[in-house]
Amino acid sequence: MKHMFKPSRYYFTFGPNEPAFKVKPGDTVTTTTVDARGFDEHSKPLPEEMKQRSEGVTYHEGNPLTGPFFVEGAEPGDALSIEIERIRINRETAWSGIRPHFGSLTEEVPGRRLLLNEPLPELRFTWKLDLERNIGVLELPRSKVGRVEVQLHPFLGSIGVAPPHGRVEPSLTPGEYGGNMDCVETKEGTTLYLPVFVRGAYLAFGDVHAAQGDGELCGTALEVSAEVTVKIDVVKGWRIGWPRMEDGEHIMVAGSSRPLMEAYKIAHFEMIEWLVSDYGFERWEALQVLTQVGRCRVGNVVDPNYTVVAKFPKRYLPK
Amino acid sequence: MKHMFKPSRYYFTFGPNEPAFKVKPGDTVTTTTVDARGFDEHSKPLPEEMKQRSEGVTYHEGNPLTGPFFVEGAEPGDALSIEIERIRINRETAWSGIRPHFGSLTEEVPGRRLLLNEPLPELRFTWKLDLERNIGVLELPRSKVGRVEVQLHPFLGSIGVAPPHGRVEPSLTPGEYGGNMDCVETKEGTTLYLPVFVRGAYLAFGDVHAAQGDGELCGTALEVSAEVTVKIDVVKGWRIGWPRMEDGEHIMVAGSSRPLMEAYKIAHFEMIEWLVSDYGFERWEALQVLTQVGRCRVGNVVDPNYTVVAKFPKRYLPK
Amino acid sequence: MKHMFKPSRYYFTFGPNEPAFKVKPGDTVTTTTVDARGFDEHSKPLPEEMKQRSEGVTYHEGNPLTGPFFVEGAEPGDALSIEIERIRINRETAWSGIRPHFGSLTEEVPGRRLLLNEPLPELRFTWKLDLERNIGVLELPRSKVGRVEVQLHPFLGSIGVAPPHGRVEPSLTPGEYGGNMDCVETKEGTTLYLPVFVRGAYLAFGDVHAAQGDGELCGTALEVSAEVTVKIDVVKGWRIGWPRMEDGEHIMVAGSSRPLMEAYKIAHFEMIEWLVSDYGFERWEALQVLTQVGRCRVGNVVDPNYTVVAKFPKRYLPK
Amino acid sequence: MKHMFKPSRYYFTFGPNEPAFKVKPGDTVTTTTVDARGFDEHSKPLPEEMKQRSEGVTYHEGNPLTGPFFVEGAEPGDALSIEIERIRINRETAWSGIRPHFGSLTEEVPGRRLLLNEPLPELRFTWKLDLERNIGVLELPRSKVGRVEVQLHPFLGSIGVAPPHGRVEPSLTPGEYGGNMDCVETKEGTTLYLPVFVRGAYLAFGDVHAAQGDGELCGTALEVSAEVTVKIDVVKGWRIGWPRMEDGEHIMVAGSSRPLMEAYKIAHFEMIEWLVSDYGFERWEALQVLTQVGRCRVGNVVDPNYTVVAKFPKRYLPK
Repeated sequence: MKHMFKPSRYYFTFGPNEPAFKVKPGDTVTTTTVDARGFDEHSKPLPEEMKQRSEGVTYHEGNPLTGPFFVEGAEPGDALSIEIERIRINRETAWSGIRPHFGSLTEEVPGRRLLLNEPLPELRFTWKLDLERNIGVLELPRSKVGRVEVQLHPFLGSIGVAPPHGRVEPSLTPGEYGGNMDCVETKEGTTLYLPVFVRGAYLAFGDVHAAQGDGELCGTALEVSAEVTVKIDVVKGWRIGWPRMEDGEHIMVAGSSRPLMEAYKIAHFEMIEWLVSDYGFERWEALQVLTQVGRCRVGNVVDPNYTVVAKFPKRYLPK
Repeated sequence: MKHMFKPSRYYFTFGPNEPAFKVKPGDTVTTTTVDARGFDEHSKPLPEEMKQRSEGVTYHEGNPLTGPFFVEGAEPGDALSIEIERIRINRETAWSGIRPHFGSLTEEVPGRRLLLNEPLPELRFTWKLDLERNIGVLELPRSKVGRVEVQLHPFLGSIGVAPPHGRVEPSLTPGEYGGNMDCVETKEGTTLYLPVFVRGAYLAFGDVHAAQGDGELCGTALEVSAEVTVKIDVVKGWRIGWPRMEDGEHIMVAGSSRPLMEAYKIAHFEMIEWLVSDYGFERWEALQVLTQVGRCRVGNVVDPNYTVVAKFPKRYLPK
Repeated sequence: MKHMFKPSRYYFTFGPNEPAFKVKPGDTVTTTTVDARGFDEHSKPLPEEMKQRSEGVTYHEGNPLTGPFFVEGAEPGDALSIEIERIRINRETAWSGIRPHFGSLTEEVPGRRLLLNEPLPELRFTWKLDLERNIGVLELPRSKVGRVEVQLHPFLGSIGVAPPHGRVEPSLTPGEYGGNMDCVETKEGTTLYLPVFVRGAYLAFGDVHAAQGDGELCGTALEVSAEVTVKIDVVKGWRIGWPRMEDGEHIMVAGSSRPLMEAYKIAHFEMIEWLVSDYGFERWEALQVLTQVGRCRVGNVVDPNYTVVAKFPKRYLPK
Repeated sequence: MKHMFKPSRYYFTFGPNEPAFKVKPGDTVTTTTVDARGFDEHSKPLPEEMKQRSEGVTYHEGNPLTGPFFVEGAEPGDALSIEIERIRINRETAWSGIRPHFGSLTEEVPGRRLLLNEPLPELRFTWKLDLERNIGVLELPRSKVGRVEVQLHPFLGSIGVAPPHGRVEPSLTPGEYGGNMDCVETKEGTTLYLPVFVRGAYLAFGDVHAAQGDGELCGTALEVSAEVTVKIDVVKGWRIGWPRMEDGEHIMVAGSSRPLMEAYKIAHFEMIEWLVSDYGFERWEALQVLTQVGRCRVGNVVDPNYTVVAKFPKRYLPK
């Protein structure tokens, strides 16, 4: 069944929050997401009454999430399957910027002060989006090159389910439940599999990026709002440890942790588990082949956890 | 005012959970804590009905917490002061053990698989506690030394308030709100200061260790239940970033993060902030003196975050 | 001028070792390399008398290096330019394997024991190389897929100059002088720029990999011997901090350090320096554009230092 | 036999450099060391002709080393034993300072740029040493406290042997051969054991610190020259992986690596090896006891490698 869903409130956490909408396995939902600061398709900020907070709690207001979607029949021990059918950017500018204590080449995580240096300046960049040509344009008045035109490749920066334990603190932390992975692979054409930890799964998503380089170096990508269509299903009894994905070319695993090397290890360990359990590889042969053909992408390296995506080409899987 | 409080249920998260008890600034509370697996002074496990969970959520059941205590008048921007007056171990054995995928010399965090090696064996150790002599005794049948007698130095492994954002996933994660720091300094005679993020603060604690080395190498210390007395107060308008402590000898800061080096940096950065704002040090002179006289302790290095305590001797503070 | 050079001895270190050959700026050298264990195009091991050691020193015998080439006119403060014209694999098998204490999913660096687990098994894999079809074939008798055919993309695993300080311990450590970066970009068609620290530069290289995935997960790639042609030149007065590269599509920087995140930071910091000094970018605009269009590759994550390559597409440079 | 040795030249590397002096097992040597910048007991800089460099090499000039001492009879597979009998500071000032790109709360390692922030200021601090009272005094004109008097606890910041592979790049890197560990335990009364990798061992040392806190936060301690007396011996056939130490209270292991957590793991792994092989502990019982009674110290966290010292109290060893 196909649904249109218009969000009327936004949580800032992944968790078993009051469901915004209930779906059945196999349903398709078309909905909208606001950008990382809560600005919508008219570049209007989120009204206060749409921000969903528990009593007495000061939430970090980054990455408001559309959802959660309660998925009937999803039980702990199952996997949720989310086919990302469409991500349509629905406005003509994206913003990005530099913040004083944020980004890989300064203090990384907002709120974790650890440098005696003076902070970076605060700067905002506005990218014009030419959706016909699928490009973003930035004027660079202080650089010789003058301007750049960048190809857009929109993806969901944040997508996840309720974690195994209550709520996830600022939605900007990725983990085994997905979350703010900022990984370029959660794009149109990818199917994402998430472990179900809580009955109903509580899928939520948002923070679409129109484009982003590996690692989201300065901490902000081309931040936009979008209209998103996903097909939601349940794979009964498929126990997975971390988010898995597939598109036409690769099967993939997203590991999120700190330090970066641990995210690399988690993603590759889980990929070997997958190759062994579902594709009939012997353990050490899986390790050998993955060593030679694996590709990896770095999600973001500015959050409380970093994300690494391990990729294995489908052409080396048994037919 | 002095209160006796007997817990009737236990949460497994730091957060704005239903208060177990309300206190006023200046009150003293005497209560009991169960051990890391929920065993009490009779080595009886926690009855199911006393485990406090949200509907549909599978909590990790480590470190059940006594509380939360709602502290009247505690507002975001204040600091909570907790004077640890007494930690009295109330039974005659402590347990420890080795778990297959847990500990610094194997996979560290339960649930984050990243090794292709076979796991460690599962082993349980029972320490006899001689509370008169303040020692723990372990028989070592397979070692030449035969047995060891270790001096006890009980401390609260877990103590914290509600974080700035909902609930904290497994109580075993330490952070800016305190939490499972497993730091030997949260002992009798120490006053702990925690930032208040949520009205009422929601103080909770537990997981007393009878003894522990730096880093809690294998992942479990001498795990016991105890009777604990704390005096709770509010320092209005004292904005602090991370848990601070003092005893007769030192002022201290506990930084918790990953990797370990980031915890070291956070603790020392915040210590310099403290020296400058409250003790009249100039910034670079504070850095110079701390470099030469600072001591640090490592809390645990087996949790999702690690903890480092930076210590500055009080004799170098202005009188 | 074009030279053919046949090595008669091999060092295992980058450093100001006795030059094997002297070249002038602009010269082209065609020579051969042996594989990571010293096996040549006939799969014969290196004779003892060709292994070059200082008196009384036990060298690690991994990655024997062809060279060093003394480059006339190369002085500290210059950059060496190495155009990799050709890498021709010269035998029909490559080996790889699993070693007990080596690889990202176990203890990583040989000789740095840190796990209480039993070690991995020792296994050797032999890949058949079909040089006509440019593929490597591995039989997988214990896996359902039976065999894989992998496209070859040969590159120099190790290439570097003398470091700023004596010799580099085991040639398998990468650093600001290059070294064992195991980075797939040091391939045919790439020009590599290395900082000159010592008069004459002392270029050396070897350890060709016929193919390798990101990170060299298990610690060994498709290890082969090869015939290599490089054009060597000097860029006078071009002070660079770390290895830089370019091919038809990208300019690149290779940062090598530990932890992995530091390699990421070094590579991206140096890329911004490059964009600012040579391409007229303003600093913050460089950061903004690199954030959105940067790609990165992970070299190896099994050595004493890890390598990350930051890539910036040439199409965004000023014409 | 007792020797007086007056250095006439200084190397900046650990390695098989030309021996300054030959000793026999059991000999005692009294000699002098200069400070980290090469200043002697008269605060005179090292004359150029005493700096020992290989032709064409630009050495980093930090930490000039006294030695190397060639120890007759020391062979690979043995351990060198160095009893630190005396460290007598021989001048009345120590210097310390803050450098723009150096220290744990900024870019850490000189030459590894990774921050976009403006650098720290350059500041020099001069400590007056009152050797009678064993204190260092620093005036703090810009701080309320005015001055501090710190107890001195002199130790060798750098001490090591030739590594298994040529020379060690800047002497400021610690490793399995010892080196610039900046660990407070290499003090009077400690016996240090170092693995012998090269025939003759090539012991060298220097960089005495009059005092230092854990981690050497800003990168420089109380830097002084000194007169040092060590008794050198060989333990035939004692294969050890990393520097070990003992004093009256503890046996100790120094692990040096990156990230900091890896140094922690190495030191504790090697400690368990030691407890098992030399003191009759069963492996898992050793892990259990070390977990409860281990103490650790952090050496420096500003060098290319960091150092952690694992300590095990001797009172828990079999008599």
